[in-house]
Amino acid sequence: MRILGIDPGLRTTGFGVIDAEGPTLRYVASGTISTVHLGKGQLPARLKVLFDGVREVMERYQPDAASVEIVFVNVNPQSTLLLGQARGACITALVSSDLAVAEYTALQMKQAVTGYGRADKTQIQSMVQRLLGLPGLPGPDAADALGLAITHAHAGGAMARLAQASGLGASMDGKYKDGRSR
Amino acid sequence: MRILGIDPGLRTTGFGVIDAEGPTLRYVASGTISTVHLGKGQLPARLKVLFDGVREVMERYQPDAASVEIVFVNVNPQSTLLLGQARGACITALVSSDLAVAEYTALQMKQAVTGYGRADKTQIQSMVQRLLGLPGLPGPDAADALGLAITHAHAGGAMARLAQASGLGASMDGKYKDGRSR
Repeated sequence: MRILGIDPGLRTTGFGVIDAEGPTLRYVASGTISTVHLGKGQLPARLKVLFDGVREVMERYQPDAASVEIVFVNVNPQSTLLLGQARGACITALVSSDLAVAEYTALQMKQAVTGYGRADKTQIQSMVQRLLGLPGLPGPDAADALGLAITHAHAGGAMARLAQASGLGASMDGKYKDGRSR
Repeated sequence: MRILGIDPGLRTTGFGVIDAEGPTLRYVASGTISTVHLGKGQLPARLKVLFDGVREVMERYQPDAASVEIVFVNVNPQSTLLLGQARGACITALVSSDLAVAEYTALQMKQAVTGYGRADKTQIQSMVQRLLGLPGLPGPDAADALGLAITHAHAGGAMARLAQASGLGASMDGKYKDGRSR
């Protein structure tokens, strides 16, 4: 299964693609979609850059599932609103091609990747590098996105084992599945 | 010029389409896109309904410009985040076809439609009915969306008169124009 992880942000959205075959994880690609060349007033144009960027990544790497970070309210309500709109554009890009979207909190991602819910950026980058056997440290946004993809691979494996144990062919995240069967 | 007004909401998004020829406004269509049949947990599926719904309206009515309400932070930060994501999905649908998107606050819309920034829902519905010569009162969400389209028609007219007076062929809202010339 090929998984696309997305760490949404209005200025910079991170993406990471991995292949998961049972417990084996393989790095495919990662990077960021940036809107910093656009001014603060140009929200619609920035959302378009995010939408087009996520769609381009999907077309190039043809993922089977997506894993998106659940964002939280910021101390600054205006930032919360902007982040919400960026996340809306990213998820819209994913579901516009009927890709199944799973959602995980940063806490879940940190626990899955480092075993520690309060891990800092550097720890995540370092563990993502080790888990995927990367030659260098991934950037923080790409590392978070790869971490989300890893989290979904782990969750999927756990659910598959559960399903096998119970004899049920349960889907991994049917809650967010949208018209696409696995 | 055909204008599509959008009043974004996660449960219900209102839309309204009008034709504006100079000071003359003509009603084309209005309605709502509802996601209430989907549960609270199904955010990606709900954003897809909004995206597909706005795109369907655009394909059917072929607007030349869009006018979207600027949403504000709610007392409940979680609601702000959800509304932001809904607005992100709607704007993404508009810009995905390179439609020019103008943004107005509720205050600007109320002033443009009723002359009074604190007008209530009923006053807006009543004035929209009168301005567009509708046989009945439009629903509140559709009325707000039609009001946003009317606001953009008025703003466009004022800008066109300004441009004529100054001899400049200024575009109406170049700030949010994205790749599409008028």
